[in-house]
Amino acid sequence: MLRLSTPGFSRFIQAGSFNATYGGGEANVAVSLAQLGVPAGHVTRFPDNDLGRAATAQLRKYGVQTDHILYGGNRLGIYFVEFGAISRPSKVVYDRADSAFAGIEPGMVNWEEVLAGAAWFHWTGISPAISEGAARTLAEGIRVANRLGVKVSADVNYRRNLWQYGKTPREVMPELVAGCDLILCSKGDAKDMFGLEAEKDSGSPWLAAAKEIMKVYPRIKRIVNTKRESVSASHNTLAGMMWNGQDHLTTRVHPIVPIVDRIGGGDAFVAGLLFGLGHYPTDQEALDFAVASSVLKHSVEGDANLVSVEEIETVMKGDSSGKLLR
Amino acid sequence: MLRLSTPGFSRFIQAGSFNATYGGGEANVAVSLAQLGVPAGHVTRFPDNDLGRAATAQLRKYGVQTDHILYGGNRLGIYFVEFGAISRPSKVVYDRADSAFAGIEPGMVNWEEVLAGAAWFHWTGISPAISEGAARTLAEGIRVANRLGVKVSADVNYRRNLWQYGKTPREVMPELVAGCDLILCSKGDAKDMFGLEAEKDSGSPWLAAAKEIMKVYPRIKRIVNTKRESVSASHNTLAGMMWNGQDHLTTRVHPIVPIVDRIGGGDAFVAGLLFGLGHYPTDQEALDFAVASSVLKHSVEGDANLVSVEEIETVMKGDSSGKLLR
Amino acid sequence: MLRLSTPGFSRFIQAGSFNATYGGGEANVAVSLAQLGVPAGHVTRFPDNDLGRAATAQLRKYGVQTDHILYGGNRLGIYFVEFGAISRPSKVVYDRADSAFAGIEPGMVNWEEVLAGAAWFHWTGISPAISEGAARTLAEGIRVANRLGVKVSADVNYRRNLWQYGKTPREVMPELVAGCDLILCSKGDAKDMFGLEAEKDSGSPWLAAAKEIMKVYPRIKRIVNTKRESVSASHNTLAGMMWNGQDHLTTRVHPIVPIVDRIGGGDAFVAGLLFGLGHYPTDQEALDFAVASSVLKHSVEGDANLVSVEEIETVMKGDSSGKLLR
Amino acid sequence: MLRLSTPGFSRFIQAGSFNATYGGGEANVAVSLAQLGVPAGHVTRFPDNDLGRAATAQLRKYGVQTDHILYGGNRLGIYFVEFGAISRPSKVVYDRADSAFAGIEPGMVNWEEVLAGAAWFHWTGISPAISEGAARTLAEGIRVANRLGVKVSADVNYRRNLWQYGKTPREVMPELVAGCDLILCSKGDAKDMFGLEAEKDSGSPWLAAAKEIMKVYPRIKRIVNTKRESVSASHNTLAGMMWNGQDHLTTRVHPIVPIVDRIGGGDAFVAGLLFGLGHYPTDQEALDFAVASSVLKHSVEGDANLVSVEEIETVMKGDSSGKLLR
Amino acid sequence: MLRLSTPGFSRFIQAGSFNATYGGGEANVAVSLAQLGVPAGHVTRFPDNDLGRAATAQLRKYGVQTDHILYGGNRLGIYFVEFGAISRPSKVVYDRADSAFAGIEPGMVNWEEVLAGAAWFHWTGISPAISEGAARTLAEGIRVANRLGVKVSADVNYRRNLWQYGKTPREVMPELVAGCDLILCSKGDAKDMFGLEAEKDSGSPWLAAAKEIMKVYPRIKRIVNTKRESVSASHNTLAGMMWNGQDHLTTRVHPIVPIVDRIGGGDAFVAGLLFGLGHYPTDQEALDFAVASSVLKHSVEGDANLVSVEEIETVMKGDSSGKLLR
Amino acid sequence: MLRLSTPGFSRFIQAGSFNATYGGGEANVAVSLAQLGVPAGHVTRFPDNDLGRAATAQLRKYGVQTDHILYGGNRLGIYFVEFGAISRPSKVVYDRADSAFAGIEPGMVNWEEVLAGAAWFHWTGISPAISEGAARTLAEGIRVANRLGVKVSADVNYRRNLWQYGKTPREVMPELVAGCDLILCSKGDAKDMFGLEAEKDSGSPWLAAAKEIMKVYPRIKRIVNTKRESVSASHNTLAGMMWNGQDHLTTRVHPIVPIVDRIGGGDAFVAGLLFGLGHYPTDQEALDFAVASSVLKHSVEGDANLVSVEEIETVMKGDSSGKLLR
Repeated sequence: MLRLSTPGFSRFIQAGSFNATYGGGEANVAVSLAQLGVPAGHVTRFPDNDLGRAATAQLRKYGVQTDHILYGGNRLGIYFVEFGAISRPSKVVYDRADSAFAGIEPGMVNWEEVLAGAAWFHWTGISPAISEGAARTLAEGIRVANRLGVKVSADVNYRRNLWQYGKTPREVMPELVAGCDLILCSKGDAKDMFGLEAEKDSGSPWLAAAKEIMKVYPRIKRIVNTKRESVSASHNTLAGMMWNGQDHLTTRVHPIVPIVDRIGGGDAFVAGLLFGLGHYPTDQEALDFAVASSVLKHSVEGDANLVSVEEIETVMKGDSSGKLLR
Repeated sequence: MLRLSTPGFSRFIQAGSFNATYGGGEANVAVSLAQLGVPAGHVTRFPDNDLGRAATAQLRKYGVQTDHILYGGNRLGIYFVEFGAISRPSKVVYDRADSAFAGIEPGMVNWEEVLAGAAWFHWTGISPAISEGAARTLAEGIRVANRLGVKVSADVNYRRNLWQYGKTPREVMPELVAGCDLILCSKGDAKDMFGLEAEKDSGSPWLAAAKEIMKVYPRIKRIVNTKRESVSASHNTLAGMMWNGQDHLTTRVHPIVPIVDRIGGGDAFVAGLLFGLGHYPTDQEALDFAVASSVLKHSVEGDANLVSVEEIETVMKGDSSGKLLR
Repeated sequence: MLRLSTPGFSRFIQAGSFNATYGGGEANVAVSLAQLGVPAGHVTRFPDNDLGRAATAQLRKYGVQTDHILYGGNRLGIYFVEFGAISRPSKVVYDRADSAFAGIEPGMVNWEEVLAGAAWFHWTGISPAISEGAARTLAEGIRVANRLGVKVSADVNYRRNLWQYGKTPREVMPELVAGCDLILCSKGDAKDMFGLEAEKDSGSPWLAAAKEIMKVYPRIKRIVNTKRESVSASHNTLAGMMWNGQDHLTTRVHPIVPIVDRIGGGDAFVAGLLFGLGHYPTDQEALDFAVASSVLKHSVEGDANLVSVEEIETVMKGDSSGKLLR
Repeated sequence: MLRLSTPGFSRFIQAGSFNATYGGGEANVAVSLAQLGVPAGHVTRFPDNDLGRAATAQLRKYGVQTDHILYGGNRLGIYFVEFGAISRPSKVVYDRADSAFAGIEPGMVNWEEVLAGAAWFHWTGISPAISEGAARTLAEGIRVANRLGVKVSADVNYRRNLWQYGKTPREVMPELVAGCDLILCSKGDAKDMFGLEAEKDSGSPWLAAAKEIMKVYPRIKRIVNTKRESVSASHNTLAGMMWNGQDHLTTRVHPIVPIVDRIGGGDAFVAGLLFGLGHYPTDQEALDFAVASSVLKHSVEGDANLVSVEEIETVMKGDSSGKLLR
Repeated sequence: MLRLSTPGFSRFIQAGSFNATYGGGEANVAVSLAQLGVPAGHVTRFPDNDLGRAATAQLRKYGVQTDHILYGGNRLGIYFVEFGAISRPSKVVYDRADSAFAGIEPGMVNWEEVLAGAAWFHWTGISPAISEGAARTLAEGIRVANRLGVKVSADVNYRRNLWQYGKTPREVMPELVAGCDLILCSKGDAKDMFGLEAEKDSGSPWLAAAKEIMKVYPRIKRIVNTKRESVSASHNTLAGMMWNGQDHLTTRVHPIVPIVDRIGGGDAFVAGLLFGLGHYPTDQEALDFAVASSVLKHSVEGDANLVSVEEIETVMKGDSSGKLLR
Repeated sequence: MLRLSTPGFSRFIQAGSFNATYGGGEANVAVSLAQLGVPAGHVTRFPDNDLGRAATAQLRKYGVQTDHILYGGNRLGIYFVEFGAISRPSKVVYDRADSAFAGIEPGMVNWEEVLAGAAWFHWTGISPAISEGAARTLAEGIRVANRLGVKVSADVNYRRNLWQYGKTPREVMPELVAGCDLILCSKGDAKDMFGLEAEKDSGSPWLAAAKEIMKVYPRIKRIVNTKRESVSASHNTLAGMMWNGQDHLTTRVHPIVPIVDRIGGGDAFVAGLLFGLGHYPTDQEALDFAVASSVLKHSVEGDANLVSVEEIETVMKGDSSGKLLR
């Protein structure tokens, strides 16, 4: 998607220009991973016009493999952002109906080729919400990944105002999630997507939900979540949690102030987690890396987390001092 | 529509930001007329979101009456522009499918109220090309205008890549044009829209076509056109012509160099013409004013012609020297 | 007035450009109210040049009725701003001597027409400080408002370096304030403008002053004030208070950090209050709305508060979390 | 003065920002000379505020001696510019009434110190038009220059809309011009300022006027002028002429296209001339250098001519090819 | 290299910011070819820091294969540009001493891998001028290319102020040029690089020089050149010529006005030529395409030619009208 | 040096432009002092090109005497900055090898003339780390200063990655420091530069080190330091300390949030101290002024502290409220 954000703290009605970047859940994860030095590719469908080519060019710039991007369809999805401050929230206006991606259909992607040699296949709950073709193409990819032994991760991410094509998430998601090895899922997602109601009296309702999900979807080995407290539009705190079937892991609570750009924080968390699981011996370290990755994202303009392993590890190890590097 | 143009001469693939204005054929005419001191209102449908409100705000800024704008539907139509130079053309990428305006339907606009007391009702060939609802709503407006004695003008303006909703211009346009008192129509439009083929051997094929049109559509009293020669993307010339049933009027040929922004040149011509017909005794003067208006438009950033009567009259009277005013 | 602010945190000596908006106490209140959906008009005098027309255009953009603006006189008042941070204050350099507004005279404004059907007539203490003509024109307007039953509100707002035309506030203000139904007045204003000295030993010197004012000016039904604590140039707190003849109402203390633009905070408070008095059953709610409005203003670039009722109510009801809206 | 220009080709009504530089006739000449390596100082009066200090800082940046600038008075004069193109003229809106400079009075400047060791004292016809104090202070300076043997040059430059303080140029200018050794004066200036009407039938009315002036003001040894033809706002031609009491010198006609910024073209001519008279053996060379200097000014943003001797000499010698320098 | 250009037409002394792109002769050719849809890679050495990585990222963005870029050494070469207009030339200040590239040494590049499957290996005369290591590494590459049957092209491009490391071009270039199949070489280059003096009386001294070169370097099959006339800094004309051993081909003369950015015009010519030789049956067409490519480059900001085959072919076929594309 | 910083919080890989200012330790101190109204000159060597002249122009703009700057050598040193936020540090990439300054040699500077009448001669530990010529030229200057009775101050400032020319700081620094009257020196500097190890058990290791230094270098009368705590990249605290041979003075701890630009904080401290020692009766006041100066620097864009005595004194006296100044 093309992201158009008003400059500074301008409101939409004031803006005489928009800053332009290209992003989207899965693309953000791919860019973040590529910046961490991990080979990462992106599969989507862009319109066969100058905007589609510009979107591809940006992904390529940040090191993402773009050979499997398809071209065709009507338009590039767009979303508009204005950044909040103090108690005024940031605001997103989506304009992604009828996008090239919505027109994707099973058979268009050569999943065998795409997934050959991959460690992970990552998707978000946005994709199956866009169109039936997108949902079915995704299902197709998950099946191939499962067959090839490529692990599957998902950011479940329920958005009420998507899902307009006649199916509900509860009809579509179970099949997709059943093929996953790892999911990012909030307590709310558990309810909205799967109808799983965490026990009210539980000490940790999220943990209860996570355990329930694992029962239903035995392939899932890890369920993660982030806990964001919003002091103001400019000041949040962030922590991570994981249920890996054995332990309920949590991280320290990171202050995030002043927020530069919070879009893509969840994608930075996922990218950090996938990196961490492949590079650290313990889930705790992977989770700590994931949260540190997400914290740093809030300091980076644009959707994607343009930071290095070294930068994340500094924060992960407890040094949030941001001391000048010369 | 929201117009997003790359800064300077940047190509789409280079652009890290877009300049944003709001425009569209009829809106441009309304803004130009308002800047000339003529009361002008705009009727359209914008989405009920921050972008729709920003579009309205810009029209209001330039003095256009916006009380009859409707809110609803899916999205604001967008078009992207990059500016050419030398022999590289400027390029427009449209993204207006499924716009709020496309969802307009007969009955939504209170045409009696809109048109009460108006001198002219102006429309362009873009509108009936967008959707059947738009075409029918327009037909409704033209009928009311005819009934109320409000004169109707049209910029016929055939665009091949619109007209996607199942009807051809030849099915739709005749009824609309039959209600017009004045049209802007090129030789090509005559053929594409009405199937009227100008005689090949005619000294002025456009004149032949214009005469033919007037025969078929007797309400039309004036047919106008502009003649643009393109030396390069930065250098054009422009002249105007009119057939008013009696005389074939032409204007001098204006050099236009260097072009700042040529989008909206036709709308500036129409606005100038409508102003001129109301303020000068002769059609020749009105036509001269119209062309001078269009020439000046090429020096103004954005779609609409933000110039004064005095500025246009200076050029109309033959002073193109652009001498510094203190 | 034209407001010219240096970009980012540039000092005046560094600035190679200025951001330009148009503002001024009463205009800011009008814009804020228009953005809240309340019909609002502005009466002033602008020079009859491109800058005057640009100022009008901006007011119109934000929905303010501008038909009663007068054109003439010498120049548009200007003020320059540089934004502070940390312990460096923001700084304003005024350049408004000899403005078109200063040349306004009784008889120029058709107050009957201006005020017909209005609920409130709002003025600030800046206006009568500018020139004798401005003070007398204002007095004229207040008399008409009183006669027509239009309520009058004032932001008393004493500025020492104005009042250069030979009269003191204590000579001019009493007559004007006597026609008011509501005033925004600090303890300092009470002393400087009216010579009313709050009792030293009072628990709330402001309350004492407010009671004193009401005794002297019996038409006044509500006196309000804001209490701003300045932790730093980037971090303030704000609360509101009201004496309505019966109750001494106060609001919660809102943290404001990081400040984007604090100019116009008082005007946003007044606009919020006038809106609130017309839309909520209690003075407490109106006051809460007013303070929330002012808090949000600090997140908006420019003088005027471009926020919606819904946005203010969210803060008013205690949610300052600024959570991302999609 | 502070110069505020709209970005690109924006019209005033569109501008959300202004580019800021500091300029003014005499200051521009001083900057140009300093850039040519000639010691140059500027005498004026700025307000004792951040804007006055910023104006001084810019002069200092470009090498002008600023020790004799006075501080005090009300405000910095301002002028606003929008740049034209094609047949739309550039436009200047002045806002310099009541400036700090207008408050200058005889006795404030220590002319003996200012002029000690100087070769030339240059003034423009703008200064005595501002206020009686300015005119009398200038007269004072010219007397001292004459006494010290410092040559005096003037750009006569009549501006109708100045001269508001009750005296006419014909009352004021003769005394000032009588002290000059060199003036820049058009045929129109000759009439407006001195009432000298060039003979109608003369082959060169300017030459006739120049001869007449020299008769009346025998101290004047050289009268110069520029001849500008305006093809369009973007395309001018320029030539120079001089009457030195013996020869009527002229230069070749330089095409100037596309114009970047034509403000200050006359000041660049004067600076070039003063430099040329001191560095070349013949008046012809000095005049050629002066015109080449002015031509190059049109390629430089801002009022002052930031070019080197070498750059001017290249053009002066006939190489206008603008070939890339590496 | 990092290219830092002042914004608009600002002179260096005025610039408060620089626009940043990354370029260099061979890199520009690679980007242009990649934009034409031809697989292209770039071999160089960048410093192992954020700037080196940014340079790589830009190449990757525009589709250039960057896997063989080396990292190490001291710094990224920089060059500064200010853009001229009218008769003021554009100006380049180089700052590339001690660059990472200068530290390249034979053995660092795996030429077999780099050149495997390539059609052409292109180099410019800048590279062997930088350092002995660069010259020797290049010689190494040319030998491998010759061995692998990869054709070699060179832009001979003599720059006097390079060649600082103790060897002269006449010592170094012959060996390198001897391995070439095609060179871009001006008459001046022929003399400066090879000591070949074209016959004075020849109708076409360049043709005479070209024939001479071919005699000395029999591997060379085509020698090309561009003929640029400089009307002004804003207006050039361009034509191309080729000697292919049989015919002296020339192209039409293209006007180029107004120039947006002329840096990289030669590289765009080379890229066009290499493309053309592979896609058209005749050398004439290849040469026409090459010149059209170079003409279009002057309309594109930055060093590299971001245009499509279709855009170049339009100009190549004689349509320089730059008509708006919708 | 030319400082090139990415706009906003952009990372290097994102930046399409750089903001440009000119700075460097000693230059920053000179600018700060000039802004405080103290005559200050700068001695360095710039390349004899447009960038060198632009650097001089900026110093001159801010009031620094530039007559003793030398021109010659290869290039202007550059450093690149990206600004951090939250826990992402700001980052500096130096590119200053082979600068014009590195080529400075004894005999080039006329120190007698430079230092005549000066109160202080200030240098930083960067200079002798650049090249042997720079170190020896500095030693020369210190000797002259000592002879003329000009006091010498130094910011010892050890940077590991400088000192590449074959000498270690311990070989070079003692002679230079021996000529100083005041030094800014951290505990780490004491060890790295002089090999002085503070006693481990000391209550204040810095104080122990300072006492030790004074023993070794008896000319030194005052040793100062700043204590910076880094809460995050956006939030630091700062305090100052001094050992003057008698008292261990400290200041209050200033919060600094949000940081606008922390580069040059140490230089602002030194400038404040030198000013303070000359204007206040006590060392405590001088130290308080120095810290307040440094705190304010963090609110100013660019390297140098563009603040007034009055602004610093406000903070020094305990008012950090940053209340709006009108």
